[in-house]
Amino acid sequence: MVSGRFAGARVLVTSADAYMGPAISQRFRDEDAEVITDGGRYLEDAEEPARIVAAAGQVDVLVINLAPTRVGSCAAQDQTEDQWQLMFDGMAHPTMRFTKAVLPQMIARRQGKIVVVTSAAPLRGSPGAGAYSAARGAQNAYVRAVGAEAAQHNVQINAIGQNFVYGGYPANAMEKPRLREIVLRDVPAQRLAEGWEQAELVLFLASQNSNFISGQVIPFAGGWVTST
Amino acid sequence: MVSGRFAGARVLVTSADAYMGPAISQRFRDEDAEVITDGGRYLEDAEEPARIVAAAGQVDVLVINLAPTRVGSCAAQDQTEDQWQLMFDGMAHPTMRFTKAVLPQMIARRQGKIVVVTSAAPLRGSPGAGAYSAARGAQNAYVRAVGAEAAQHNVQINAIGQNFVYGGYPANAMEKPRLREIVLRDVPAQRLAEGWEQAELVLFLASQNSNFISGQVIPFAGGWVTST
Amino acid sequence: MVSGRFAGARVLVTSADAYMGPAISQRFRDEDAEVITDGGRYLEDAEEPARIVAAAGQVDVLVINLAPTRVGSCAAQDQTEDQWQLMFDGMAHPTMRFTKAVLPQMIARRQGKIVVVTSAAPLRGSPGAGAYSAARGAQNAYVRAVGAEAAQHNVQINAIGQNFVYGGYPANAMEKPRLREIVLRDVPAQRLAEGWEQAELVLFLASQNSNFISGQVIPFAGGWVTST
Amino acid sequence: MVSGRFAGARVLVTSADAYMGPAISQRFRDEDAEVITDGGRYLEDAEEPARIVAAAGQVDVLVINLAPTRVGSCAAQDQTEDQWQLMFDGMAHPTMRFTKAVLPQMIARRQGKIVVVTSAAPLRGSPGAGAYSAARGAQNAYVRAVGAEAAQHNVQINAIGQNFVYGGYPANAMEKPRLREIVLRDVPAQRLAEGWEQAELVLFLASQNSNFISGQVIPFAGGWVTST
Repeated sequence: MVSGRFAGARVLVTSADAYMGPAISQRFRDEDAEVITDGGRYLEDAEEPARIVAAAGQVDVLVINLAPTRVGSCAAQDQTEDQWQLMFDGMAHPTMRFTKAVLPQMIARRQGKIVVVTSAAPLRGSPGAGAYSAARGAQNAYVRAVGAEAAQHNVQINAIGQNFVYGGYPANAMEKPRLREIVLRDVPAQRLAEGWEQAELVLFLASQNSNFISGQVIPFAGGWVTST
Repeated sequence: MVSGRFAGARVLVTSADAYMGPAISQRFRDEDAEVITDGGRYLEDAEEPARIVAAAGQVDVLVINLAPTRVGSCAAQDQTEDQWQLMFDGMAHPTMRFTKAVLPQMIARRQGKIVVVTSAAPLRGSPGAGAYSAARGAQNAYVRAVGAEAAQHNVQINAIGQNFVYGGYPANAMEKPRLREIVLRDVPAQRLAEGWEQAELVLFLASQNSNFISGQVIPFAGGWVTST
Repeated sequence: MVSGRFAGARVLVTSADAYMGPAISQRFRDEDAEVITDGGRYLEDAEEPARIVAAAGQVDVLVINLAPTRVGSCAAQDQTEDQWQLMFDGMAHPTMRFTKAVLPQMIARRQGKIVVVTSAAPLRGSPGAGAYSAARGAQNAYVRAVGAEAAQHNVQINAIGQNFVYGGYPANAMEKPRLREIVLRDVPAQRLAEGWEQAELVLFLASQNSNFISGQVIPFAGGWVTST
Repeated sequence: MVSGRFAGARVLVTSADAYMGPAISQRFRDEDAEVITDGGRYLEDAEEPARIVAAAGQVDVLVINLAPTRVGSCAAQDQTEDQWQLMFDGMAHPTMRFTKAVLPQMIARRQGKIVVVTSAAPLRGSPGAGAYSAARGAQNAYVRAVGAEAAQHNVQINAIGQNFVYGGYPANAMEKPRLREIVLRDVPAQRLAEGWEQAELVLFLASQNSNFISGQVIPFAGGWVTST
């Protein structure tokens, strides 16, 4: 018997083997969704997102899960051009391309959900993370604009502004003294989030229960940021 | 068989017969919560919230649902003292009193949820709504501060910054030409939300699935505001 | 010769002997403004602001400078009713009363400036500061609403969301180890602001050069918060 | 006699003949700054900003004034790759390159100002402006991150989140019925700003009076947005 909350739904998860992809894919499968995964990194080929969406057929939910292949924190005066472009090529640009590719079918059906996994970093101002923040900020701003557009078609797009989540951090992250100190000092929750917790927010934003929410960046960071 | 998502949970809903109270209470009952309702308005007696919480016994989830008994929009130069105080007496002050009353038991159990129904008005700047915005802004700011405090005890407090929701508006609101015009012009979703949709966000914020979210004001307004 | 930037302007500064009052008054006088000071605390008499404004005659610039007589940080579960009310009586309510009192003459002249000294605390979520944040958040939200109203009359009202400023802190504040540690860790500027620096922002917001800015809370905190 | 507020200061203004460049350059010259203008568009050559800064010698103030050569509003599903890249090539990427180029000399002198002219669009969610909002959002997020970094060196970087300003709009903009309707309906100030007004905010952020402000996006939009 197929009876989960997402039974019958086709969910496309990008970079499904990386970052939050495994946790998100698993939780959708637990709820009986048909999960279409893609392992690409989309760095070089601007056409790839359109091909992936075309191959996927009907997409009820698109989860845009993109992370940099290399974080490369540095002072702004040491920013390399390569690392800067890597951030935009790996996160900002594919966000637009996947969204563009999937919107026509969602608008035609007057139903659809796009959830973009982004970061809380641009909500707070993070030293050393100029490139990362800029590319994540581009994603967040894009979600706000398209969220205001798509809502009239009953299509919702929202972002999760996350930080301090396993998956984004390795499983042994809290054993590293420097990170541990930051978490205990700056994160009110005093811990990192489990991947499934993040996935639950994705599921909420992918469900019909959140149809009145669009264009928002929902902070998911243990209280590290306070929006609005 | 009791098997809903909130089976075994004791949920206290303030002003349960007003504003979002009926929709929220119903959705918790659907999920097998034990709902403790209170019909007070808490305008005059600063001790009442403490008495209500004491009488309730264990409270796993507190929903602070408070609305003005009279909206009273006016230009700032016409603001009456009475109407101003009504907003704070009816919304800001009881929010603190209920929160204060329930926190000790939640901290002692290292588990608890407080969801405050507030407004998107202070997130955008609403002409004519100085008093309302100020009192709602007080609630929002209080949630941010206490959210950062309570998270270390695994107690989460968040607010729903809502607008254009039935319950807040009467059932025939969209028949009123002035409101209809505003919704079609300024609300990307092009409609008012149903009460149950708002209640679903309350339930998400009341569940263990949102334990990494605290101190946030989540916009729920059909895209009318964009936070962060 | 009277030739300063505010020559001929009548500037009313509330609580002029406290908090940022001395620095602000001095800088306006340096620029040849006629400064009308008031030493009240406005805690108990709701009519006092109207009397002060009436006695002042023409007010071109109103600086609402209000601070709590006692800060009283505490955990939310230890919040006293008295301390809570003190915050609203001392900051939120007089903000409305002074604004209401001065708006009619400003609207009639189609020119006027209101600058409200508030705090960055509600922009970040400050543990232990629930009451303070709530009352400052009320001021900020009020400024946003009235800012959107008053602008059509060419009257601008804005707030300064400040923190880590001498005047708010005593002159020897950086000698206190606990504060010094916080500043070096959390304030990118690595110092406290001088009173005159804060006053310069007041002067900018009080000048005709900022007529296109209304309803804003401008962070002034050495980078401790990042808005929007 | 050279006695203006910026006498002796060397100010580099990018794209000085376009967008806000003429108004900003004029106001700095009025105040006796030495203005170094550059007419480039920086679209194709990633090395150009470094060359321009090197050629300029000492730069006390850098104004990063960049606008798209073509706005190209469109629905997200109609976004072309070219127009998307144009936004990032013309605004986001050169912002990083100019900042990177000028920071070392400013840090070495422990004094310097960077003012970035960006937009209020990403602060509100603007339908049809996904590409523009994303690139402006990247600039804003970059300013927040670098603002938190640079402040420790007594170098400040801030952005002006503007909208409805002549210069950005042509001199006859208010004669266009569609824009006029938007301004009268959605802009509390009920008008467009003059270029000199915008320039005054640039001058404030370029002066030593704003040394405690860094990493901020200051809304300049007649009340159209309310931040934080």
